[in-house]
Amino acid sequence: MQEQIFSSSYCSALYLRDVAKVRGKVFVIGREGLRNELREAGIHLNTDEDDEPGATIFNCTLASDVKAVLVGHDDKFTFLKLAKASCYLRDPDCLFLATDADPWHLLKDERILPGSGCLTAALEAASGRKAIVIGKPSPFMFECISSQFRVDPAQCLMVGDRLETDMVFGANCGLDTMLTLTGISQMKTAQEYKDSDRSSNHRFVPDYVVDSIADFLSAFKKD
Amino acid sequence: MQEQIFSSSYCSALYLRDVAKVRGKVFVIGREGLRNELREAGIHLNTDEDDEPGATIFNCTLASDVKAVLVGHDDKFTFLKLAKASCYLRDPDCLFLATDADPWHLLKDERILPGSGCLTAALEAASGRKAIVIGKPSPFMFECISSQFRVDPAQCLMVGDRLETDMVFGANCGLDTMLTLTGISQMKTAQEYKDSDRSSNHRFVPDYVVDSIADFLSAFKKD
Repeated sequence: MQEQIFSSSYCSALYLRDVAKVRGKVFVIGREGLRNELREAGIHLNTDEDDEPGATIFNCTLASDVKAVLVGHDDKFTFLKLAKASCYLRDPDCLFLATDADPWHLLKDERILPGSGCLTAALEAASGRKAIVIGKPSPFMFECISSQFRVDPAQCLMVGDRLETDMVFGANCGLDTMLTLTGISQMKTAQEYKDSDRSSNHRFVPDYVVDSIADFLSAFKKD
Repeated sequence: MQEQIFSSSYCSALYLRDVAKVRGKVFVIGREGLRNELREAGIHLNTDEDDEPGATIFNCTLASDVKAVLVGHDDKFTFLKLAKASCYLRDPDCLFLATDADPWHLLKDERILPGSGCLTAALEAASGRKAIVIGKPSPFMFECISSQFRVDPAQCLMVGDRLETDMVFGANCGLDTMLTLTGISQMKTAQEYKDSDRSSNHRFVPDYVVDSIADFLSAFKKD
């Protein structure tokens, strides 16, 4: 089962190892789960773990062998991490990667959990560079899946709850798309994209909509 | 002398008090200097000072009377500050302000100090909103100066070291502009903007260029 789950963290590790073939260390803005995914893929990490408490961008240690910066979700994001990553990205040969572009996640009590897209936006401003985004809507994750399982895009359905990532991902990869209304995006927004005069907005429109993924499961029942 | 210095912090305080006439508290991402500027203008602040150590967006206190979020330079920026500000900005009546748009500052040893423009970019992504920028290149600072001193734009010279903020500010306010080469922007970039086919890039081009502000001071000498 585990080998059938492709997270943006796992695909980022594959990208660094197999596509970019990074030689040197990777500076990670992210949580332990992402770090573990990278370590398991054999990637060498540089983190801020060695910094003295109270270190600043004026006096902190900067490694000389950082060849990539990877930004993921990080609820321990600090100004120092942002500043260090900005320094590493001054080297044009240092790769700039983001696990995903999710701007935020809605919590149960209407609070907002900023996503890695925010941290990437900060670093893009600080570095004047654009990150390569591994996760949806970039087709790289589908390429990862295709490389390990024989899948025919015409036989796939992309199911998701966010129009701006999940549905666009499907469109980018030639998959039919289905929106579930149990998450971020609602019918009204999908309709607005559909009615929009801008053809680029039509990539946000799902082929199918279900109230809940549970409604869809009956399709799996044998007749 | 002090009353002749208009910082983006001071002008932000004036904007909140006199233009937006904010009733309620202001959540500040910024340093003590900015907070003091606001307090002196009589603005009520909400900061994260009351949070327990180890608080997260899941369990922290959120105030009910925050009517504006102001982002300035903050070398103690954290994920929690970003998350709290994102929550406040879900209220469409909560104002979203930034002291300035500076993306980064170059330190002596080629290190990068991220500017408030980065933090604003993160919060814009997390909130899906655009900040009102008080500092350059917005003309609001010149309006502040004009409101307190009689100044004729035609008699003013805007001197600065960054094409994308200082020169555009001058252009926006109808001032002649002068670039000093002792800071961020160099002659090559100014020339590239001048030679650009995109007319919007011509706003970045200074009217005058000096190697150093010192070269210009001789103009003040009496004949």
